[in-house]
Formats: sequence, C-alpha cells, structure tokens
Amino acid sequence: MSTPISNLRERLAELEDLRSAAAVLSWDQEAMMPPEGGAQRAEVLATLERIRHQQFISADTGRLLDAAAAAVDGTDGDSDEACLVRVVSRRWNKLRQVPPELVADEARAASIGREAWIDARRRGDFSAFAPYLKHNLELKRRYVDCFDEFECAYDALLDDYDPRMQSSEVARLFAQLKAELTPLAAELARHQLDDSCLHGHCSTGRQRRLVEKVLALIGFDRRRWRLDDAVHPFATGVGAGDVRITTRWHESYFPAALFGAMHEYGHGLYEAGVDGSLRRTPLGHGASLSVHESQSRMWENMVGRGREFSRVLAPLVAQAFAGPLQDLDADTLYRAINRVHPSLIRVEADEVTYGLHVILRFELEQELLEQRLEVDDLPEAWNARIGEYLGLEVPDDKHGVLQDVHWSAGLIGYFPTYALGNMIAGQLWGQVHDELPDLDEQVEAGELDGLRSWLVERVHRHGAKFTTSELLERVTGCPIRVEPFVDYLQTKLSRVYGISLNPQEKNQ
Amino acid sequence: MSTPISNLRERLAELEDLRSAAAVLSWDQEAMMPPEGGAQRAEVLATLERIRHQQFISADTGRLLDAAAAAVDGTDGDSDEACLVRVVSRRWNKLRQVPPELVADEARAASIGREAWIDARRRGDFSAFAPYLKHNLELKRRYVDCFDEFECAYDALLDDYDPRMQSSEVARLFAQLKAELTPLAAELARHQLDDSCLHGHCSTGRQRRLVEKVLALIGFDRRRWRLDDAVHPFATGVGAGDVRITTRWHESYFPAALFGAMHEYGHGLYEAGVDGSLRRTPLGHGASLSVHESQSRMWENMVGRGREFSRVLAPLVAQAFAGPLQDLDADTLYRAINRVHPSLIRVEADEVTYGLHVILRFELEQELLEQRLEVDDLPEAWNARIGEYLGLEVPDDKHGVLQDVHWSAGLIGYFPTYALGNMIAGQLWGQVHDELPDLDEQVEAGELDGLRSWLVERVHRHGAKFTTSELLERVTGCPIRVEPFVDYLQTKLSRVYGISLNPQEKNQ
Repeated sequence: MSTPISNLRERLAELEDLRSAAAVLSWDQEAMMPPEGGAQRAEVLATLERIRHQQFISADTGRLLDAAAAAVDGTDGDSDEACLVRVVSRRWNKLRQVPPELVADEARAASIGREAWIDARRRGDFSAFAPYLKHNLELKRRYVDCFDEFECAYDALLDDYDPRMQSSEVARLFAQLKAELTPLAAELARHQLDDSCLHGHCSTGRQRRLVEKVLALIGFDRRRWRLDDAVHPFATGVGAGDVRITTRWHESYFPAALFGAMHEYGHGLYEAGVDGSLRRTPLGHGASLSVHESQSRMWENMVGRGREFSRVLAPLVAQAFAGPLQDLDADTLYRAINRVHPSLIRVEADEVTYGLHVILRFELEQELLEQRLEVDDLPEAWNARIGEYLGLEVPDDKHGVLQDVHWSAGLIGYFPTYALGNMIAGQLWGQVHDELPDLDEQVEAGELDGLRSWLVERVHRHGAKFTTSELLERVTGCPIRVEPFVDYLQTKLSRVYGISLNPQEKNQ
Repeated sequence: MSTPISNLRERLAELEDLRSAAAVLSWDQEAMMPPEGGAQRAEVLATLERIRHQQFISADTGRLLDAAAAAVDGTDGDSDEACLVRVVSRRWNKLRQVPPELVADEARAASIGREAWIDARRRGDFSAFAPYLKHNLELKRRYVDCFDEFECAYDALLDDYDPRMQSSEVARLFAQLKAELTPLAAELARHQLDDSCLHGHCSTGRQRRLVEKVLALIGFDRRRWRLDDAVHPFATGVGAGDVRITTRWHESYFPAALFGAMHEYGHGLYEAGVDGSLRRTPLGHGASLSVHESQSRMWENMVGRGREFSRVLAPLVAQAFAGPLQDLDADTLYRAINRVHPSLIRVEADEVTYGLHVILRFELEQELLEQRLEVDDLPEAWNARIGEYLGLEVPDDKHGVLQDVHWSAGLIGYFPTYALGNMIAGQLWGQVHDELPDLDEQVEAGELDGLRSWLVERVHRHGAKFTTSELLERVTGCPIRVEPFVDYLQTKLSRVYGISLNPQEKNQ
C-alpha cells in the first residue's frame, strides 16, 4: 500500500542506490582501477552526482517531503519516519540552492584532483598540485556563495560533514584542547620510552596475516567485509552486507597497517550497524563524520592501543614475526605503541600530538577559504606552523602539506571532525565503562562482543537520525566535551610512562 | 559551440557514463563484492538501468536525434556522425516501446539470478535454480511482447546482441556448420592423440605468473588493464584506459586459465581499440557480440593454439612448470592443446565440438522461449541432446545445464554469437593472412604488433558504426560464411593429427 512515507522512501531509495554506485566507483578508483582510467572515471562520477542532485532537489522530492511531513505531524519526533522527514527536509532546503552543474564540477574535480595528488605526492612536488587545490577552493567558494543561512563561509562546509556544527563551537573546543595537549606533549617529551620493538623489517605477507587474524578476532566477517590496499586508507559503506576497508603497509613499521586497519574497521562497523529500517535512506549512515571518527579512533586507540588488548595482541605479534619479536611481552608492546613524540605525519601521530595536526589544518583551511592565505604560500605557512606546534622541521612537502588526500578531493571543512571524534570517543569510552563494568576483563580475554553490542545499541543503529549533539546527549547526557578525552589520555599515559600526569587519576 | 551533433553527443555521453558505472558494478559483483552484498547490488543495478533507459527513451532524446538526423542528412553515410544517428535512432525506436519498470525488473533479476546460479551450480542443484530461470524467461517474453517489428520472438532478443541478425539466418548457418562439424568430430574420434603433458598439478601461483607473462607479451598493459579471478570468466570495457579481464584456475589443467585469459584478452583488445572519437557514445564498443567473439576466439585459438605461437609458448610453459614439463617441445604442446574429443563443458571444448555445444543451446533457448519446452524438463532435454550430439552421458547438472552463467543473468539469445564468432574469426584470419603474408613468421617470433594493428585498423576502431554484415563486407568483401572457418579447422587438424582431412589443403 502506498503512503506518503512509503512514497518518500521509494524516491530516497533510488537516490541511495546512486550514492551506493558512486561509493563503489570511488572505492574502485582508489583500490582497483588501472591508472589510465582516471579521466573517464571523473566524468562518470560527475554524471552520477549530477543526476542524484537533480533528482534530490526536484520539486517532486519537495512534494513528497511535504506530504510526508503532514503525515508525521504530531507523532513521536524520535521515530524513524519523523527523523527521516526532519533530516531530509533540512538537507533538501540547503541543497536546492546549489546548481547541478556545480555539483558535477565538484565531483569531477575531486576525482581528477585525487589522481593529481597521488602523482604530486609521489614526486613531492607541491607546485604540480597547486592548480588543483586552487580549483577546488574556487569551487568551494562558489558552493558557499549559494547560501545565506550560515554565520560564516566555513560553517556551510562543516555542516556537510557534521550537520548543524558551527566553526565558533569548534574553535572554542579546539582552544581548550590545544591548551591541554601542548603542555602534555611538552611534559612527555622530557621522558624517554623505548619503542624499538616496533621498528624493523616485517614482510607485507606476514603483516597481512597478522592484520587478518586481528580483524577476524574483533568481528571482521568475510561474507560482509573486504580488506584491500590503498595509498590513503579509508572505509566505504557500500550498503547492507557490503563494507570495505583499506590499509597500507610499511615494511619497516608494522603498526601502521595494523592500527590503520583497526581504525577503518571502526568506521566499517558503524556503517554495518545501522538498523535495517534505515537502509536505502539518507539516514542509513553515521550521524556525522565526527561520530564516525569517534568509532574509528576508539577501535584504533582505546581498544587497539589499550592495556587490555595488548595482552591479546602481543602473542599474535610474537607469532607473526617470530625471530626478533618472539619474546615480545604485552607490557613492552603496550608502552611502545603508546609512545608520545612529535612527528610529521598525522595518521601516524600519537594520541596527544594528533590533535595539534588537526588544529593546524582547521586554521589553514579557514585562511585559505577566506583568502587570507594564498595557495602558493601554503607550504611555507604549513612548515612554519609545524615548527610552532610540534617543534619540527618539515624536510619536504611529501612529509608536509602533501600528506593528506582530503584537499585534493575537495574535502575542505572535514578535518575538524577528526579531533571532535577523539573527544566523542573519550566520552563514549567513559560511558561504556560505566555501563559495562567488566569491559576491561572482556577485552583482555579477547571478547569484543560486549563492546560491539553496546555500540550498535547506543550509537550505530540510529544511523543519521540525530545530530552529533543530540546523539551525545542521548547516550552520555552531555554535549560534546574535551575533559573526558583529556582525562583518558592523562590516565593512560601516566601508566605508560610510570609518572603522574593527573592529580585525580581515574580507573578508565 | 553547440550543434545538433554536439547536443546529441552530450546527452549520449551521460548515458554512457551510467553504462560505465553499471559495468564497474557488475564486474565488482563477480570479482570483488562480499557475498552478502548481492541483494542490495541488485537494487542498485536496477535503479541505474531504469534511469538510463528512462533518459534514453525520453522525448528529449528523440528531439536531439531528429535535429541531428537533419544535420547529417545528405552527408557521407559512413561518417561517425551519420552512423551515430543511424544506429542510435534504430535503438531508440526499439527501446522506447519497453517500459522502464521492465528494464529495472530485468536488471534486478539478472543480478539476483547470477547469485542464485553460483550457489546452485556449486551444489549441482538445478531445482534451486529453476525458479530464477522461469522468472527470467517470463521477463524475456514480456520484453518480446513489447515489439511487433520482428519475425519471431527470438529475433527480438538476438537483435540486442547482434543488431539486425535473424534467427532464420542463424539456423541456416548452423545447419551448414553442424553438417561439417559432426563428421569431422567423428573422424577425429577414431584417432588417438596424447595430451598428457597438459594434465598434472600446477600451482595457481605458477600459472598466474605464466599467464601474466604471456599476456604482457601479447599486449596487456598494466596502466590500462586488470586481470582478476571469476567463477565464469568475462571481459569488461569500463571505458578509455580501463579494460578488465578475468580467468579461472584449474590446479590440474593449466590450459584453462591460460587460454581463458587469452580469450578474454581478445575481447578486451576490441574494447580498447575503438577510436577515441566514438568514446562516451553507444558506438564506443564492439559492432556485435558475434564480432566480439571473433576477436576472443582468434586470440584464444588461432593465435594461442596456433602452430607458430606454440613455439613461443612452449619454452614459457617449460620454464613455469619446471620438473615434469621442463623438456616440453613446441610440437608436443601444439598437438596436445589441439586434441579434439567430445567433452561436457563448453568453455573447455575443442574447436570442433565447441560449435555443437552452441547449437544445442540455440535450439533449447528457442524451445524454452516459445514454451515448447518447460524449464522443469530442461535437464532431461539437455542431457538427451548431449548424448545425441556428442555421444556423452551427463553425470550431474553442474557438468550439464548449470555450467553457463548466461541464462541466470537473463542473457537469452546470446549463445549463437559464440559460434557466429568462430565463423567470423575464420574469415578475418584468412583475410589478415592475405594482407600480411609474413604474419606467421611474426607470430613465431613473438611479435604480435602487426596483427594487433591490423585488427585495430580494420575492425576495432569502427566500434559499433556498422552491423556484423556491413563490417564483414567492408573487411573481407563477403557476408558471414561457414567455409573459411571449416577450411581453417581442416587444415590445422590435418597437421595436428598427421592425416588429410581436406582434399584441397591450403596454407592458412
């Protein structure tokens, strides 16, 4: 029987199908496509995005939304249907101001830009990449100009990755975070910590077997998941029963692939955990990229680099890399993988300095967008700020401004979600320990079912029904906060370094 | 500057982008997708096909075609533009009679049917597959009912794979072919030929390296091509710079993977060779599946199993499988890979009995479509006809009616193109030898550039500008004929078996 809600769902399902197609094509471009296929792939993605946008912003969709809104009027505001209408209406009102040609131009530029970035990064040649970044920024300015409902240009972008989040709020949180992280990093820099067990040749084949074993242990299921290689690791939720993650391999540093894979597993698990009733709707994905990142960072750092999981991991590492590591014990591993020291590459940064990498990008993005900084001056600005925040000298652009894929793919306004994700992870990690008092014992026994079920029940199944703040209020009773994450870091690092970093040490 | 032709091209380019997206998704479904992703993938493919069909048959496209037709009126009928208008107009007039929902239903059923077939084939359980085949046949009958311009139901299907080809013509050619092949197979059955060198354990890893080496030698370029594994090997032309082929590995019979890969390479080369000016139009692919198959069969059999290429292949095989095969010589290999003996699996059949496999399917398809044969009676009919044509008993449906993917994916009317392809390959193989008198010496020296260039120049670059007949007339001066293929077989097999099969032996 056709109802206003079923009619809306049918239309949205078709649009979700186009999204799913584009997701496979983008995954394929990163993980499978022969290099010479790039030019045509950009056109195909542009066409898909244009059609999807045209159909979404059509008056037809508007009428379906109006009819559905009338049907849910006065019903429970937290129901799937009410949330669907509320979230999609807001998005429709935003996006119908954007011309389809601009959407196609952005998709094309993103696809071409990624290819150009891979090449420029390999050669460490920023000047080869600069024209693509300029073009992407120009497109973003045209995009921002479509709206007048946002407080500032950056808010219009941020809203695409974290609905209703504002840069003034991000700036406030980041100021507080920076004030905590900077002295913490400085304090830890005065202490030595041996992480030599992590460095040394480990063949990709052995690493791959280790990673597959660890993923299987924490819930990776070959009937629903794939693991592949990528230059810049990512996760893709293609749809029900199809989640794909990627990682990259460093022959002389196995933690990159291992924790990279656990990170992407966290993203994948979120996509896989959304309730079936929200599938093939725009709510069938994470609430925001910030909440998404909380999931990846939780699995990478709070589980993966946690004291309890180190007891599971150490024998697997010892077995995988017999020889130098055959006597590796859990405490040695735990300390090594939690060593804090400033470094140049964000994705390899420790949990303390990671936030400073993100804050740097947040600042530079705003300056670029508002043209207070020119693209040609970006490497210099980048290098100066790395010196200021981390005390490091950048030897070349490959280890500096060219390290991340995001700007090449038009993802501007995305970086803040990484540090927000850490904070959210801190809040959720505290909450799950309150609600599952024996969680540490479970993890130490290699049992992750309890954590996974809690995450599905409290976070994943809701998909994008709620904003970041709404979801956090529901789960933890609080809006987004810096303190739980800082407490978590201080407690953990006091233990790792055998020093007292927090006057009121908590058992988290 | 916008012209009637450029406007038409722009519209067609978008539709080609959707085709390219669907090609990647289908390739992904076969080669990459986790098993549980199948249900959603079917919906995504259905949506893409529905949108593509809707946009293609729209009145808008009709107006663009009319304007373009007026613009090319009176110009050279062989120009890209005139061919584009002619071919696309004919297709538009056919397809606008088909409701979009039927197209979506067919795409969905094809995707679901393939998954069901993989499972049923593995278990050898025809009854599990029968409902899907019944549904596909029902959809095909609804499709056929959309038209009244075809002589018979089967013609409406055949036309999708080989435009303007008619089943009466196919039946006439197949009667002649069968009359030639049946006594030839019977004659050769009376002779012994040792092919034991092909049987024995060869690890997939070694086979893969051999296949990669051979493909590289004949023109596979990693910047533009991919090779992957699939249950039922196939080739996909995703677009410019992106051609994908697949093969499958038998640990105890290496020729399956090797010649399977050369077969798909022939398809891929055709897709790769279409002129750039026809890209992102419906003419940017092969003329028909029959001509397509002529290319794959030529590379598999006329090159790959040819006497000259055996001299290239033998040392590579000897090197790959050192041990039992280290002394393999070219003549032994040449004879073994050309042994004629009736067998159950079409894709592994020799060049003589292959045609009989196809004729059997052509007959059964017509009977099923016209409901002279019921699906539930199909295995029995299949097995009886295998006995009649090949003198074999079918031990189970996995080696019988369940062996091919086609019917599961709604590809009914497709099989004849396989045997037509052999005939066309025979004609083209004769023609290229007339035009390149030293071709055999080139192939024996491992030089395939001459053959490739000739194929691109005479066949590939034209894409789908011409029908099978038009193309053959242009290249060989004749319509499709049985004789050149039979001559080729008799000449080759006389040599292989050391007997005289042809009174007027030719040097081909």
